[in-house]
Amino acid sequence: MSNFSDPGLSNEISNGDKMHKMAKVLWPIARSLTGDGVRETLAFIKQEISELNIESVPSGTTAFDWTVPKEWNITDAYIEDNYGNKVVDFSKNNLHVVGYSIPVDTWLTREELDKYLHSLPKQKNAIPYVTSYYQEQWGFCLTHKQRSKLPAGKYHAVIKSTLRDGELNYGEIILKGAEDKEILLSTYICHPSMGNNELSGPVVTTFLVKWLMSLKNRRFTYRIIFVPETIGSIVYLSKHIEHLKKNIIAGYVVTCIGDNNCYSYLPSRNGNTLSDIIAQHVLSHIEPEYKQYTWLDRGSDERQYCAPGVDLPIATIMRSKYGEYPEYHTSLDDLKFITSEGLNGGFLALKKSIKILEFNCYPKMIVICEPQLGKRGLYPNLSTKGQKTGVRAMMNLISYSDGEKSLLDISVIINIPFWELLPMVDDLVSHGLMEKHKECQLEK
Amino acid sequence: MSNFSDPGLSNEISNGDKMHKMAKVLWPIARSLTGDGVRETLAFIKQEISELNIESVPSGTTAFDWTVPKEWNITDAYIEDNYGNKVVDFSKNNLHVVGYSIPVDTWLTREELDKYLHSLPKQKNAIPYVTSYYQEQWGFCLTHKQRSKLPAGKYHAVIKSTLRDGELNYGEIILKGAEDKEILLSTYICHPSMGNNELSGPVVTTFLVKWLMSLKNRRFTYRIIFVPETIGSIVYLSKHIEHLKKNIIAGYVVTCIGDNNCYSYLPSRNGNTLSDIIAQHVLSHIEPEYKQYTWLDRGSDERQYCAPGVDLPIATIMRSKYGEYPEYHTSLDDLKFITSEGLNGGFLALKKSIKILEFNCYPKMIVICEPQLGKRGLYPNLSTKGQKTGVRAMMNLISYSDGEKSLLDISVIINIPFWELLPMVDDLVSHGLMEKHKECQLEK
Amino acid sequence: MSNFSDPGLSNEISNGDKMHKMAKVLWPIARSLTGDGVRETLAFIKQEISELNIESVPSGTTAFDWTVPKEWNITDAYIEDNYGNKVVDFSKNNLHVVGYSIPVDTWLTREELDKYLHSLPKQKNAIPYVTSYYQEQWGFCLTHKQRSKLPAGKYHAVIKSTLRDGELNYGEIILKGAEDKEILLSTYICHPSMGNNELSGPVVTTFLVKWLMSLKNRRFTYRIIFVPETIGSIVYLSKHIEHLKKNIIAGYVVTCIGDNNCYSYLPSRNGNTLSDIIAQHVLSHIEPEYKQYTWLDRGSDERQYCAPGVDLPIATIMRSKYGEYPEYHTSLDDLKFITSEGLNGGFLALKKSIKILEFNCYPKMIVICEPQLGKRGLYPNLSTKGQKTGVRAMMNLISYSDGEKSLLDISVIINIPFWELLPMVDDLVSHGLMEKHKECQLEK
Repeated sequence: MSNFSDPGLSNEISNGDKMHKMAKVLWPIARSLTGDGVRETLAFIKQEISELNIESVPSGTTAFDWTVPKEWNITDAYIEDNYGNKVVDFSKNNLHVVGYSIPVDTWLTREELDKYLHSLPKQKNAIPYVTSYYQEQWGFCLTHKQRSKLPAGKYHAVIKSTLRDGELNYGEIILKGAEDKEILLSTYICHPSMGNNELSGPVVTTFLVKWLMSLKNRRFTYRIIFVPETIGSIVYLSKHIEHLKKNIIAGYVVTCIGDNNCYSYLPSRNGNTLSDIIAQHVLSHIEPEYKQYTWLDRGSDERQYCAPGVDLPIATIMRSKYGEYPEYHTSLDDLKFITSEGLNGGFLALKKSIKILEFNCYPKMIVICEPQLGKRGLYPNLSTKGQKTGVRAMMNLISYSDGEKSLLDISVIINIPFWELLPMVDDLVSHGLMEKHKECQLEK
Repeated sequence: MSNFSDPGLSNEISNGDKMHKMAKVLWPIARSLTGDGVRETLAFIKQEISELNIESVPSGTTAFDWTVPKEWNITDAYIEDNYGNKVVDFSKNNLHVVGYSIPVDTWLTREELDKYLHSLPKQKNAIPYVTSYYQEQWGFCLTHKQRSKLPAGKYHAVIKSTLRDGELNYGEIILKGAEDKEILLSTYICHPSMGNNELSGPVVTTFLVKWLMSLKNRRFTYRIIFVPETIGSIVYLSKHIEHLKKNIIAGYVVTCIGDNNCYSYLPSRNGNTLSDIIAQHVLSHIEPEYKQYTWLDRGSDERQYCAPGVDLPIATIMRSKYGEYPEYHTSLDDLKFITSEGLNGGFLALKKSIKILEFNCYPKMIVICEPQLGKRGLYPNLSTKGQKTGVRAMMNLISYSDGEKSLLDISVIINIPFWELLPMVDDLVSHGLMEKHKECQLEK
Repeated sequence: MSNFSDPGLSNEISNGDKMHKMAKVLWPIARSLTGDGVRETLAFIKQEISELNIESVPSGTTAFDWTVPKEWNITDAYIEDNYGNKVVDFSKNNLHVVGYSIPVDTWLTREELDKYLHSLPKQKNAIPYVTSYYQEQWGFCLTHKQRSKLPAGKYHAVIKSTLRDGELNYGEIILKGAEDKEILLSTYICHPSMGNNELSGPVVTTFLVKWLMSLKNRRFTYRIIFVPETIGSIVYLSKHIEHLKKNIIAGYVVTCIGDNNCYSYLPSRNGNTLSDIIAQHVLSHIEPEYKQYTWLDRGSDERQYCAPGVDLPIATIMRSKYGEYPEYHTSLDDLKFITSEGLNGGFLALKKSIKILEFNCYPKMIVICEPQLGKRGLYPNLSTKGQKTGVRAMMNLISYSDGEKSLLDISVIINIPFWELLPMVDDLVSHGLMEKHKECQLEK
């Protein structure tokens, strides 16, 4: 039987709190594409999901057109003024250093220093997030307010980093289901201390894994990966592309899913996959005014999953989309920007989407013409003007249950949430009026 | 030759009067799903159309998921007060009794009586129409105004009805045409004294039959049925489904076709059948602002004709749609609500639709490039600015006559009524410029 | 390599001047369907394009439903008043005589004369353009202002014309390309002194031929014809229809392409041919608010090229469309109404369209997933917020280069001009990241 009900709102809200708590623990870790920060993060997730496999790929490994970069680690970084005051200090905020900065220990004039500084003139109180993965350089990030007040004088720039052959790490867990067909969830673990465009992804994904593991029966097999963005998904695809192209039937990139603002949806390249239809259906009922982006607005790992010749059916459900909110890629995308409620809402939207994948079916009426619902107590016996509204959804469901349309298709056509129609299907099946098929009954 | 012109407006208006007169005769009959009222109604229609066959099906007969109910008859019903005054009297308006009420003869207090009363708080002067076909109960309907003024005291409720095994009746007439392919017209004869949502249907249908019988040549075979709603169409389908699925190419449910308000259209489940395209084309030219409903707004016998696995191409052309006008299913849907003009307009809309079915064809130019119409007197010989508007429709017709598009398709594309293009087709055919085909000339 | 750049704006403006100068030379010639005016016009074009073949077809020749009319020539025509004043004089404006007027030499009263006069009450200062090719009659055209002031009295109407068996002439040039597939350009040379709806067509076409002849490599074969409208295109089709149906893959009617107003587009009958998609793409970038007409607005030789059973993929790119501007078919459509700038803009719009035909291809990524553009200097190495806009178009191009969509398709999807994407394709091909295919790589 298809039990679609959520285990209680109070419980879910406490999930939101748990997720926010987990984000808080992961917050200070200095993540990047590679290095100790990624490994620490994966190790913490493995505490939550012991079945997680942590994989490693050596620097220099080729993945399609790309090469795994050197491993970067950093222990300390600061800018000191002539008086020994640390005016910029990595230990206070790990956004202060340009990601993948090479080591440096040098004295510069204020003017010389400025070439190595990054700030946002339009967001004077935000420290920007800047990286240079594939060209060796160094730099510091700070608020524009601070930068414009830095006095003339000598400055001591110190970055204690290493950039050496090492490894790239990612986490993977596969949850077997009754069918070999797979659902992919992919999130990334490569940004330092940011909330919505980093921690919301692995945190919500971790809780989705916990929920999926709690299910007694899973129809589909679930493949969940925690990878550094871009290079991680490319490496993963290069290792598994044939298997993925054969088995993945739907999936989502999990990112930007924790703030408390409007939901949004980014389609797959194809735009009309099962993942797309479900995402739009779920969001249209959760938040009718959700934002619809197009493939031209893409920006995360769907770029790889949906690339020409890869074309996995992967869409993205988000709250505030990367690149579209002022706090994005700055120190303002912090633990206040994401909320318990926001994380929980994102979690539930993805959970609803996965449940639709699990429980979608092709309902087909067994009886010809409308069934006589009244004799089964499913229809009011007294016919009077305007009384039938309560059963209208069921009558519409019946009217479209021709074995050619999936329950999801019908939900979209009659604009009633899938999760309200599914119990009706079960009711009609139990009354012997309807059959549920796994596949379309259309003769071709 | 396709003579599409109507036999004169004055004549048609007199048709409207005749139809309204017929409605007046049928008005007082106490129709229900079954019983004497239905038989009286059918007998009267048979006076108009002697070829009508009146069929009967015994109570208890199974039809798909349904069972033909007992036959209901009623001779009298009233509520008397303590002083012998009939405060509610079936003989004054047959809506006063809940349809299929079981017999009763009992004294009740005002408070006890109230449980058996039905009225409409929002329409204080309307007697509602209420039925309980499939659960045995009894009740009276009255205006809310009267109900709220009924004083305390004792009341004598009397219903002299019978509910016994008997039969369900319907009328059927089949008019043979040159082709075995059939057009279905279905109307219902099961509501007591109401105008638009009852009598307009059988009355307009009767006059359509008369007109169809007057045609010297019919291309298609016409199947016209007068059935009690829902159970009647289900019974009819259960007896003829294979034949109908094989032969019906178009058709309409005829209902709510007699008031003087805006035309409306309810699609088939498929939404794009020949019946649908014709209905939209006709109404778009009769009343460009006609109301378009969707399959989700359905409510009459199309629910059965278009059910999954039945899927006949049946649409509905109406004036004020059932459920959408305040007078619906009340005593206010009376002989004033339907008018001669309204009935005649509905009649003509359906007649036009049927004529399009009869005369639709696939025109195909014989000559390559535009024909030289000037030498045939079909085009002005003097070419001067802005003079060509009169022949524009014909040039557009010619330009789309590729044997792949039907004349109906072309009418829709160039937005000129079918009935204006048909004489042009005949003209072009007579000049040897065009061929008329019954079927699409597209090589497949 | 695909060199798509235009040879410099200053050069092009000078092309505009050259075109306007050519229009001025052709202006006074008394063109009609047939006769010396057509031959003089073609002879002048042959001075510009020596390879032009001038063809002739005898009067009386049958072409589909049409017959080539007699040849019409005219040496003089006037209306004299009683005092010998020429009040209307063909030698001053060749619109003064109804085209194909039979010879006349007669005296009439003012009242009798009026039956032979044509003017435009709503455009009092315009001489209308009137013809009667297929019914023998005569007449004069004059401004309404003059007509309403012509006093009573006797008038001497003289037309020194001949209408005799002769020939119909047209010009044709075929420029061979690497492929047998052909592009058709068709313009007309049958209107007397009018600018936009006559001379802009042959003049712009002449300069397109010059440009096409200057190309070192042509992918497609070009067939360019200068024909009298309607009868000319019908005659041409009757001689070449099988070849054209087999070989023409795109093309344009060149007309109304020289004034300085808004661009417009008239589709082919099919509406979705290569010619249509290109025309819309080019105009959407040249003038986003360009006017889109429909096939129902057609009016020139596309009526023949796209007739049922002919169905060549021919669309029309115009500035002010025939029939839609007040000056149309009057003496006001003069050499001031067309401009150097207007002619040059029209020329460039068609040139851009032809270039797209020549250079369209199916780009397909060779690498799987996104390529690493940074290591090739094609992508910024420093990743910071909002910096990527410059490379967005290239990333979108890459993302759609699946071998199934043409570069034109991609240009439309991502709304970037074809001529901006083509250099990116060449760049990506030269970096070994992309292949360019002539045909779609979709397995079917």
